[in-house]
Parts: sequence; structure tokens; C-alpha cells
Amino acid sequence: MTNPACFPLTAGSVQDAAARIAPYIHVTPVLRTRALDAVSGAVLHFKAEHLQRVGAFKFRGACNAVFALSKAQAARGVVTHSSGNHGAALALAAQLRGIPCHVVVPEGAVAAKLAAIAHYGAQLHRCAPTIAAREAMCAQLQVQTGATAIHPYTHPHVIAGQGTAALELLTAQPKLEALVVPLGGGGLAAGTALALQALAPQCPLYLAEPAGAADGARSFARGQLDHDFIPDTVCDGLRGTLGAVNFDILRAAQAQVLTVEDAQTMAALRLLWTRTKQLVEPSSATVLAAVLANPALFEGRKVGLVLSGGNVDLDALPALLALAA
Amino acid sequence: MTNPACFPLTAGSVQDAAARIAPYIHVTPVLRTRALDAVSGAVLHFKAEHLQRVGAFKFRGACNAVFALSKAQAARGVVTHSSGNHGAALALAAQLRGIPCHVVVPEGAVAAKLAAIAHYGAQLHRCAPTIAAREAMCAQLQVQTGATAIHPYTHPHVIAGQGTAALELLTAQPKLEALVVPLGGGGLAAGTALALQALAPQCPLYLAEPAGAADGARSFARGQLDHDFIPDTVCDGLRGTLGAVNFDILRAAQAQVLTVEDAQTMAALRLLWTRTKQLVEPSSATVLAAVLANPALFEGRKVGLVLSGGNVDLDALPALLALAA
Repeated sequence: MTNPACFPLTAGSVQDAAARIAPYIHVTPVLRTRALDAVSGAVLHFKAEHLQRVGAFKFRGACNAVFALSKAQAARGVVTHSSGNHGAALALAAQLRGIPCHVVVPEGAVAAKLAAIAHYGAQLHRCAPTIAAREAMCAQLQVQTGATAIHPYTHPHVIAGQGTAALELLTAQPKLEALVVPLGGGGLAAGTALALQALAPQCPLYLAEPAGAADGARSFARGQLDHDFIPDTVCDGLRGTLGAVNFDILRAAQAQVLTVEDAQTMAALRLLWTRTKQLVEPSSATVLAAVLANPALFEGRKVGLVLSGGNVDLDALPALLALAA
Repeated sequence: MTNPACFPLTAGSVQDAAARIAPYIHVTPVLRTRALDAVSGAVLHFKAEHLQRVGAFKFRGACNAVFALSKAQAARGVVTHSSGNHGAALALAAQLRGIPCHVVVPEGAVAAKLAAIAHYGAQLHRCAPTIAAREAMCAQLQVQTGATAIHPYTHPHVIAGQGTAALELLTAQPKLEALVVPLGGGGLAAGTALALQALAPQCPLYLAEPAGAADGARSFARGQLDHDFIPDTVCDGLRGTLGAVNFDILRAAQAQVLTVEDAQTMAALRLLWTRTKQLVEPSSATVLAAVLANPALFEGRKVGLVLSGGNVDLDALPALLALAA
């Protein structure tokens, strides 16, 4: 997929996105809980993106990309590849605009997420679970249908749209002393960096990344992208490789990667489930895991954390819980 | 346990309770979800009592009972028997008033719930899992300590306190055409009947009861209490026997019992988890199960449903999920 010529992305891009998607998205609540403040020693503000439409922040970026299309572009539809939440998000955004949506999904993707994509009226196209296979099928669909490719995390309108979650959080809680988001492909992370630039340039940005998919941490350490890894993590939303544009934005923002082991993530997930009663997905728990693993960075501070999604595959729950016992 | 002489309970008792407990409780949100409206054909308003303090509506009644005590009574503490949520609720209420709390818990109670009770500083006393054994140990503790017994669902201040959840719901949504609450011992149910009497006397009250603990349904059918049963249901919050005072209030209110099989409850629980992302406990799902099983009563109506609690035992989840598969 190639990107439209709407660089450079700026803080203003996020504010434009917020205005564009306002009629369609939920302004999600910011959750507080005494018990997790006590456990962490920090003052935690959870942005509840699992309560966003389609159950994940991904709807923001997809919605921004779809509604930014010209009428002629839109009529030919959109296409993407996605392991789940972005696919469902793009499908709903396309349904709301009344245009076709094609989603290329890898074999082995989470069943609950595929059902959600189909539910929103998109056409599913299955392929082998490699980036190359996905890109090839996307390209083929573009040629066949004239649809516009909306990459899950490098498309600039997607990045700008994802930043609107942090924009809302920073508007509701202007004096955050740290902000923590999960790091996968970097769409949410880069969008958040732009939002911070607009509203709280002094607030440090931390990126919680699974140790089993730590291309972000290695890329930051080497000063250049390092994609040489095979993801091995329970966080199915964070297995993507960090995008180049995302990496550039995050380096400029001096973001810091905090890697967390799956065991730490699952312990944090248990805490989130039992203390907040919110059924977030494992990727969402990386942020709390990162805070609990780094008390020197967060104790006594007012911390924002983005709970990225809540699309849990219930059939996989027993195995997940065994990991966290 | 015997009850203090503060009968008759009236609609005003619930309004008094609301004023008394206002400084301590959460006004819980009312949740809406497109997906479950579509599934049910009704317009569903979920009162989110799993987000109440201690994770259940039980805190309302316990709080009302504790803060209604005279200073002299309060100083001697409180005692109760409870399979879980009421025990935790009474413990927190006592902690907030700074008085001793004794909780008699049956062997085999849910581990997560016992941990919560201990967490709030109450003293646990274990006994055999029979009503007789619990009552005996409660009586013994009353004699030894002078503590006031606060029965989980027949104590009038408890009943009045539980009614405040419906009072809030009816204030936020005045035009409900039906209200559905779970039926166990009848504290929530009777309190809700009193709240309806105050704010919406024309709105019918439905009681969702597990088929495996259907003493309520049998008592209504016979016109007198029928406690001759051994509970067999996944709804651990609803295994208690209907109280006499509760039964009287519910009959006067012309409440109607709707029994639901555990399989229906677990299917409804899956829907609640995946659609609302709220980790409610099985007892909470009985209300949605009752609505889905009785479309003739609810289709096209604006329906209130009380989600009673969210204290799920994660270690029991795999077995629960297998039931619902």
C-alpha cells in the first residue's frame, strides 16, 4: 500500500480528524479506580477505547480515512489487510459512508474478530499469514476494483485519527504527567505523539510493547527499523511491525519503549478484569503492566493509559487464564 | 437474625436510604448498546451495579443498614452471614464508619469474594454450608460481641438500600415500560418494588430466577413460601431462599417471576461480555436471559435491567465458558 500525499502530519492533523469523525465515534469515558491506584502508587486515568465502536480505538483512524476520501474515490470502495480490529473498524466506517469494503485477513486470525468484520458488511478475502501475501492480495484487489488501500497503521489519516483518543483524554485531564499506550504497528503511538505535541508537549510518552514482538524496542536501540523477528505474544493486536513513518514520528517525539513479558501483561489483565470489571483484551493490559514494572517512572504521578480494545476471543480465554494463574 | 422494628417499609424508606448513603456510594451509569437492542428487539437500559463499590448493588443495602445504626449500636459492630457480595459490602460499610465487622462464610464460598471481605478489614468466621449452621454462628457472635446482625436480604434497611439502584435508574429513565431484576433472597427485588411504587407504579416488575433455584417461582405459584429445594445453578449470587418479608412486598407489587435455565443465562452472559465489554457475573445475566426468552413481554418496549454484580471468580471461568459453548 502507498500513502496519499498529505504529509507532513502535524498536531493540526489530529484536530482536523477529531472534527471529521465527531458525528460517528463515541467519546469514550476516562475510568478511575481506587484499587489500581493503590497497587501502582500512581494516579491512573484509563481511556476506555474498548468502549469505542467496534470495541477498539481503531475505529477512529478508519473513520477518519474513509470520510477524508473524495466522493469519486469513496464510490470505488476501500481495501485493507488486518488481523482483526482495523478490518472491523474499516468495515463499519465504510458501511456508515455507504461504500464497498474489502478486507484481506490472514489464516489463523481470531474468530470473533472475523465475525465482526463480516457483521459490518465487508467482503472477507483470506490469505496466507505473511505480510507479503497480504500485500499481494491487497494490490490485486486494488487493481480489480479501484478501491483505495487504507493501511492499518501507516496511512496518515489513520495515524491522525488514532491520535484523537489522546486528544480527548488530554482535554478531559489536562495535567497528565505521563501517557502510556501500547505499541504494535505504531498507528496509535504516532497519533498520540502528535496529540501530545498539540496539548501537552512536556508530557512524556511511553510505549508498552510485548517482549515477544519487541521490534520497536530494538529499532529504537539501533536507531533504525529492525523487523527481523517472528512475533510470539498473547497480544494479538500487537504483532504487527513498526511502520517507518510511525518510527520517525515517535523518535521525533522522544518516546520511550517499555517492554513487558506476557506473564506481566496477563497479571495486569487479571487486575483490570477484577478491579475495573472491564473485559479488555490482552493488548490493552500492556500499559498497566508497563506502569507496574517501572515504579520509578510512574509512582506519585498522574498517568494516562489507553485501553486499546476489548475484543476478547472467549474460546481462547481458558488458555489465556492458565498463562496468568 | 431478627429485624429491627422499622416496618412498615414504604417507598419513602427507599428515598430515605438514598439520602443516607449518597456520600458513600457510586451513582452507577446506565449502559446502552445497539447490538443488544438488535438481538432483543427491545430498548435496553442496563443499570451497571457491577461498577458499584465492592462490585455489586449489595453495598447500597449494607451501607444503609450500617449508617442507620445509633452511635451506641454501631460501636459494638455488625455481623452477618453471606456467600460473598453482602459480606464484602458490609465489611466496607463498617470500615467507612470505623466499626468492627464479623462475617460468617460457608465452606466452599467463592475465593475471590472471601478475599474481598478480608481486604475490607472484616473478621471471617467459617462454618458449614447450611443456613442452620450460619444462623447459629451468627447468633453466637451476637452474644459474644454485642454486634448487630445485618441479614443479607430481609433486614428492612438492607431492602430499602437495595431499592436505591432502581430509584436512580427510574430518575435517569422515567418512562421505562418494564423493569427486570434478578431474584435470589429478594432484597434487590423487594427494594425495587418499593422504588417503583414511588416513581413508576404502572411499570411492571419482572424477577429473573434461575430454574435451579426456583423457590420464588414455586412460592408465587403456591401463594406461600416454598423453601423445599437444593440450589443447583451457576448463579452463585442467587442460591439464597426467598425471605418472607420480601415475598410479601413482591406479592403486593404483583411482580412476576420468569425462570431461566443456566444455559440461557450463560448465553446471555456471553452476549453481555462480548457486546458491552463489561465483566458481569453470571447472576447479572439472568435479566437479559429472561428478556430474550420472553419476547412477547418485552419486544418494542423500553426496558430497565439491573446488572447486579461483577465479582467473577476467574479460576472458575473456564468451566463456566464450557457450559456456555
